[in-house]
Amino acid sequence: MKKFAIVLSGCGVFDGAEIHEATLTMLAIMKQGAQYEIFAPDIKQHHVINHISGDEMPEERNVLIESARIARGHIKDIKLYDPNNFDALIFPGGFGAAKNLCDFAFNGADCEVNPDVEKAILKTAGKNKPIGALCISPVIFAKIFGNVKVTIGQDTGTAEAVEKMGATHIKTNHGEVIFDEKNKLFTTPCYMLDANILDIAKGASNIVKAMLELM
Amino acid sequence: MKKFAIVLSGCGVFDGAEIHEATLTMLAIMKQGAQYEIFAPDIKQHHVINHISGDEMPEERNVLIESARIARGHIKDIKLYDPNNFDALIFPGGFGAAKNLCDFAFNGADCEVNPDVEKAILKTAGKNKPIGALCISPVIFAKIFGNVKVTIGQDTGTAEAVEKMGATHIKTNHGEVIFDEKNKLFTTPCYMLDANILDIAKGASNIVKAMLELM
Repeated sequence: MKKFAIVLSGCGVFDGAEIHEATLTMLAIMKQGAQYEIFAPDIKQHHVINHISGDEMPEERNVLIESARIARGHIKDIKLYDPNNFDALIFPGGFGAAKNLCDFAFNGADCEVNPDVEKAILKTAGKNKPIGALCISPVIFAKIFGNVKVTIGQDTGTAEAVEKMGATHIKTNHGEVIFDEKNKLFTTPCYMLDANILDIAKGASNIVKAMLELM
Repeated sequence: MKKFAIVLSGCGVFDGAEIHEATLTMLAIMKQGAQYEIFAPDIKQHHVINHISGDEMPEERNVLIESARIARGHIKDIKLYDPNNFDALIFPGGFGAAKNLCDFAFNGADCEVNPDVEKAILKTAGKNKPIGALCISPVIFAKIFGNVKVTIGQDTGTAEAVEKMGATHIKTNHGEVIFDEKNKLFTTPCYMLDANILDIAKGASNIVKAMLELM
């Protein structure tokens, strides 16, 4: 049975992992006969956002502990991720990917990637295993690999930053998956487009299917 | 187009709404051609649980604000719920249903239901519209209606408390839905059983389907 490692970045679209994308990635993996384990970095969240008002809240939260809400407690520090135990790595989206896994939300093309996230990606690529990213997460691929083909949907500003990092951005619509042959990278736009939960189910299903076909 | 009101109880299985049940209820509703709005009470959570260790954390969180993470900000105070604008009401599970919407987790059969939650349920029942509950949420029906037929799966202690409140408990397996004709109540066990995310998708789909067939 093929096994995915899913990397989360908190719990909630505006400061963490996008909950529908995370949940529907898990569903897509099991529905297609594979299994998963969940990881997240054990670091402080960049900030905590009130998801009604959009305001910052005077609180501190931990990415691993908040991600555990989506994982129902079954989660490990990403430092413990070993690509030898998995067939693929996948990143759901949410601003957490651009605020906690890297700082793209604040520094755009000049962003830095969390060292443990970067290590997980490079070790997986080194084993020639596929890596997927939904929504805003593909910016991490652009930063780490430079000259790769990815999609973040159709947002012009983000696409320009992706190209500034040396990557080629491909415009996509709901559920479309872009494949970068050289590095076995898969990307799909999900909530980077004006999407509903059906579109997310389709995007998650399509990217998992494409990754499984390559394994 | 038929419209559901979904009531959440926070964000995370151990102190709030169960995230997979909430997300997959939303997916099931849209997949079957209906739509939804999301509500939650604007009250303090009973407590905050670290979802890795199970320990209580020295924090305070608000049920409406945390539920907004699952709702991507599109959520209203349950005080604003008007059954005239909806065809059905539905409660995903999670301990939040038994800690924030009522206090069943602490007081069992002697629990009290949050007054605004009780009002929403009674007004919906008064309009003869269907009401659904997943996982542990059916205990709220038992408390409010007494003599009704519900399921919480197979947990003996919970089933006994449900019967102590005057209700009849029906043992169920993954995806089964119990229908109480008199009050148009629908219940399904989801994570009250040792379930995986495929079982939850099936349970959410089946309960929404059964409710839509009655509308």
